[in-house]
Amino acid sequence: MSGVMFQENCVINYYECDTTGHLSAPMLLNILLNVSGSQCTELGVGEDFTHQLGVAWVVIQYEIHFDRIPQVNEEITIQTTPLSYNKYFSYRNFEGFDLAGNRLFTVASSFVLMDLHARKMVPIKEEIVAPFGILKENKMVRMTKPEKLTELVTEKKFQVRYLDIDANQHVNNSKYLDWALDVLDFDFLNSHDMIYCNVKYDKEVEYGQIVESKVSSVVNEEGTIKTIHQIKNGEHTACELTIEWKQK
Amino acid sequence: MSGVMFQENCVINYYECDTTGHLSAPMLLNILLNVSGSQCTELGVGEDFTHQLGVAWVVIQYEIHFDRIPQVNEEITIQTTPLSYNKYFSYRNFEGFDLAGNRLFTVASSFVLMDLHARKMVPIKEEIVAPFGILKENKMVRMTKPEKLTELVTEKKFQVRYLDIDANQHVNNSKYLDWALDVLDFDFLNSHDMIYCNVKYDKEVEYGQIVESKVSSVVNEEGTIKTIHQIKNGEHTACELTIEWKQK
Repeated sequence: MSGVMFQENCVINYYECDTTGHLSAPMLLNILLNVSGSQCTELGVGEDFTHQLGVAWVVIQYEIHFDRIPQVNEEITIQTTPLSYNKYFSYRNFEGFDLAGNRLFTVASSFVLMDLHARKMVPIKEEIVAPFGILKENKMVRMTKPEKLTELVTEKKFQVRYLDIDANQHVNNSKYLDWALDVLDFDFLNSHDMIYCNVKYDKEVEYGQIVESKVSSVVNEEGTIKTIHQIKNGEHTACELTIEWKQK
Repeated sequence: MSGVMFQENCVINYYECDTTGHLSAPMLLNILLNVSGSQCTELGVGEDFTHQLGVAWVVIQYEIHFDRIPQVNEEITIQTTPLSYNKYFSYRNFEGFDLAGNRLFTVASSFVLMDLHARKMVPIKEEIVAPFGILKENKMVRMTKPEKLTELVTEKKFQVRYLDIDANQHVNNSKYLDWALDVLDFDFLNSHDMIYCNVKYDKEVEYGQIVESKVSSVVNEEGTIKTIHQIKNGEHTACELTIEWKQK
């Protein structure tokens, strides 16, 4: 049984778009989290409430399927529905629609609760999820994992910047996707649309650290292209991503 | 005589804030341009109109005075008023207010029209500014220039990334400010508020180019700190900034 649905409209701003005039995938992640944050606030379990309990929601994984990527100045509707939770994980779906009601994207996501002082995952507190109207399940939902990078094609280094860290005091989730995309070729990015993106966060990186964004790519039988990404922070894997693309 | 005033409200999102939970200055620039863009659209001289004429507005300079920097989740009102224009330059003010009517910031700005094909400045076309209700003046408005960097304290290199380029197809204005800020110390940025920022754009940089962000700093008699920035692209100066700070 799913929980309480919530929806919000937003207009896609020019600075949220790439050079082709389409919403950038990193900015979509920011917008999604804004909508789920609005729902939490409306239900009385927003950031003020979770911070009082010494915890905050942290996204662990997103799996996005795009039907169409919204364009600059377009108004879109985003719906979000909490699905279920277990001891450590909470699951939530998002769907985006244009004003004619056509679906733009669907997103599956998983969240954990982090203790703000220990910076560690803690069991989900019932009072935080109670207003979502979802049930506690004993088993975990199995989200598809991003594929493992086996062959390295190219890599690029990035140093974590001051403004990569947002008001939640950790590196903004969207930045890992920035680093993954920037290792791809300019002409490739301009001539392909993202149709699928699976991003899984493993280990947080910190200000000043230097990450390596690595990628390999595969051409699928259907003619789509798959890029397999790994963001490494020294020995640690910070983030893994699988992205699928089709020619514009 | 000033022109037609226009105002728009917006809520400050978490991903538009720095680690202290205050709106980042680069994101303020994006929001300002959104508001002036909305006015142009409302007056029938928006992007669709200017693009048909083969031109686009480009910001040349911003001079910002902060009374208070807005915070995450705060709703603010931004007012903008076109002031005047001459052969090549058009001038516009912005003011930000909180919902209690207290002023947050004032911004003076200058714009030029760029030919989209030649990527060169062209004389301002009367039909584009007519709805602003402003007069053509023969003399230029003298905006204070950022100070010249004379002594180098520290510098950092940045490569222009794919997502630094926005839907206007050039490096987003806010990115130059990102590069300027990131050369400053983390603890300094966390313990100081920006009270003044003068940013002047000289020469556009392009995808893949490597810029050098240089800075020197001066302690003023009043106890405020001034940082003087230069963004260099090889031999060319891409952007100059003077920023003033006070301890939080």
